[in-house]
Amino acid sequence: MNDEVFMSRALALASQGLWSTSPNPRVGCVFVKQGKVIAEGFHQRAGGPHAEVAAINQTKDSLTGATAYVTLEPCSHFGRTPPCCQTLAKLNLERVVVAMTDPNPLVSGRGLSVLKQAGFQVDVGILEEEALQLNRGYIKRMKQQGPWLFGKVAISIDGGMALASGESKWITGDKARQDVMTLRAQSCAILTGVKTVIQDNPLLNVRLDHLDKIPKPMVRQPDLIILDTRLSLPLDARLLTTLDSRNIVVIVGEGLADKKRQQQLSSMGVEVITLPVSTEGVDLNVLQQWLKTTEYNEVMVESGPTLMSQFLQHHLLDELVVYQAPMLMGKGSQMLYQVQTTKLTEAARFTLIDSQVIGDDIRSRYQRKAEPELQP
Amino acid sequence: MNDEVFMSRALALASQGLWSTSPNPRVGCVFVKQGKVIAEGFHQRAGGPHAEVAAINQTKDSLTGATAYVTLEPCSHFGRTPPCCQTLAKLNLERVVVAMTDPNPLVSGRGLSVLKQAGFQVDVGILEEEALQLNRGYIKRMKQQGPWLFGKVAISIDGGMALASGESKWITGDKARQDVMTLRAQSCAILTGVKTVIQDNPLLNVRLDHLDKIPKPMVRQPDLIILDTRLSLPLDARLLTTLDSRNIVVIVGEGLADKKRQQQLSSMGVEVITLPVSTEGVDLNVLQQWLKTTEYNEVMVESGPTLMSQFLQHHLLDELVVYQAPMLMGKGSQMLYQVQTTKLTEAARFTLIDSQVIGDDIRSRYQRKAEPELQP
Repeated sequence: MNDEVFMSRALALASQGLWSTSPNPRVGCVFVKQGKVIAEGFHQRAGGPHAEVAAINQTKDSLTGATAYVTLEPCSHFGRTPPCCQTLAKLNLERVVVAMTDPNPLVSGRGLSVLKQAGFQVDVGILEEEALQLNRGYIKRMKQQGPWLFGKVAISIDGGMALASGESKWITGDKARQDVMTLRAQSCAILTGVKTVIQDNPLLNVRLDHLDKIPKPMVRQPDLIILDTRLSLPLDARLLTTLDSRNIVVIVGEGLADKKRQQQLSSMGVEVITLPVSTEGVDLNVLQQWLKTTEYNEVMVESGPTLMSQFLQHHLLDELVVYQAPMLMGKGSQMLYQVQTTKLTEAARFTLIDSQVIGDDIRSRYQRKAEPELQP
Repeated sequence: MNDEVFMSRALALASQGLWSTSPNPRVGCVFVKQGKVIAEGFHQRAGGPHAEVAAINQTKDSLTGATAYVTLEPCSHFGRTPPCCQTLAKLNLERVVVAMTDPNPLVSGRGLSVLKQAGFQVDVGILEEEALQLNRGYIKRMKQQGPWLFGKVAISIDGGMALASGESKWITGDKARQDVMTLRAQSCAILTGVKTVIQDNPLLNVRLDHLDKIPKPMVRQPDLIILDTRLSLPLDARLLTTLDSRNIVVIVGEGLADKKRQQQLSSMGVEVITLPVSTEGVDLNVLQQWLKTTEYNEVMVESGPTLMSQFLQHHLLDELVVYQAPMLMGKGSQMLYQVQTTKLTEAARFTLIDSQVIGDDIRSRYQRKAEPELQP
């Protein structure tokens, strides 16, 4: 029971890094001696001290005989900082409690081995589920499966994302829109389609005045990825004014982009990447391969109904975050899912993770159900 | 503060009558002396003792000097039982606390007057909002506005009620379907369209084996109202087997029903009522007028997308209860709202009352926003 309490505290500390640790994982650490927390810390940003070191730095007392609670297996490799498992090994701890092993192929059990060799009792798997959720993006990437892709949509009770006219401002209320800012702040990148840029002319960045729960100095701007098969991004799009605070990547279709326009964008500081196309535009499966080459842990898809539906149809979204407004849009509205389903057994199914009321709207998080294995 | 605590208890008692008091309201009563509850009771069914009398019958001690907490103004008229205000007046109470006045034109303040004339301090309006919610159907009917009409729908995340093929079984999970049983058990009548009867052949009754939270002896079967413009109800429809436990009313279009079929149904015990038609079928505004002539407090509309959409379009639903399943139905599915909206400012809007996870699904209750007053 005590293990859960102290690991809970370590997880709460870790989550303070929600907005700032990427590409590193969010990690917290608590040192406990005679039932009391004597030092605690979390990893704040890549290049800075790891959680274990942040905690050690917090106290001048001896840690000999203490138990360390760490939300992720202490690292075993030399990165920008020395391996934490060796730092811990010098402390003469009694026990190390770890929520989950680090899926990073450079660590993956080696950190635990070092601690055991130091003679410590090592217990793994305390509050593992919570630890997994906190770093699902990092974990997926470390398993070479690319970033955690989640789609964010604002819809009516009857599933409309926009009217037939394209009108979609504003479906949800102010509190829901503020909540979206926290999703953006957690993301390494926002991914959208050029149609959304042309139609809504959005900034797609994190506005600090909309964030009341996050310490402002920790907030970073997520990168922006724009799918733009024919490179029709307007050179005066508002989002280009955010170039000084973030990377903007435009993905164009092979052989479909005007060279002069491409040069203009490059000279502004936009990265233009060329990928093969499918009948729908930039090939989303190839896009996913490209995403695996990045250091993005979590990528948030914010797009119109057409692109969102394509991501859903190709089973590319790990998660769908739905903000549902108390209105009916009715016939002819542009629906979230534009694929025809002929039998209910073939409908795209999800698992509801949580649902809560936010202002006048409901926010629900769904995770994709694993596709049924094909029979050989 | 104490007033709220004791009234809360009275409301909890009142809600034990959720399934059984109609056409009477749900009422609870608590007697308190020197800060202690000395007697409590609730109204169980029409013709039985009112809450005040049920509470009085519970104790042999003197109630002189006690405070009575009642969730609804004590009645002042002779119905099937003598007026409760006079019963209370004889008790030499110190104070009577009432959550809300009774909108029944036969009471409406007269009960309070009698209590004041008896020399009691009378306080009204404690937890009034909760009391209003508990009896919203009774209140609406007493104000001559007919029953509280609420629609129940099971939809996908993207607002589908059925696939293009008509397939709609089963969208939601078992727990949501059980929850629907409690909604039915609270209703005086279920209203549906004949299309649903023909397509799904449902029973549309309360199945006791699906109710785990309600004392079985209290459960009554709601009446059933079927809109059947051309009287095409199959004589072997399963729901006709429930005739021994409930009234079934079939509403047919004026001059559109086959006389022989009508007689067959009548001889089975079905009540057939003829109403004028509009272009959509039975005229729903006339139907609403007819509903005002009934003693129904709450009527639950359980129908397919076409009829539900008509009820919504004509602003006849006071409330919409949405069970949303974690799936996407996609293009071509039959949508909850089949009316074209051209501007978001014209979209049908609701107020979210509550939302909770039930099994794998989300249940959300929405109340209709008052229509904007037309300018003269």
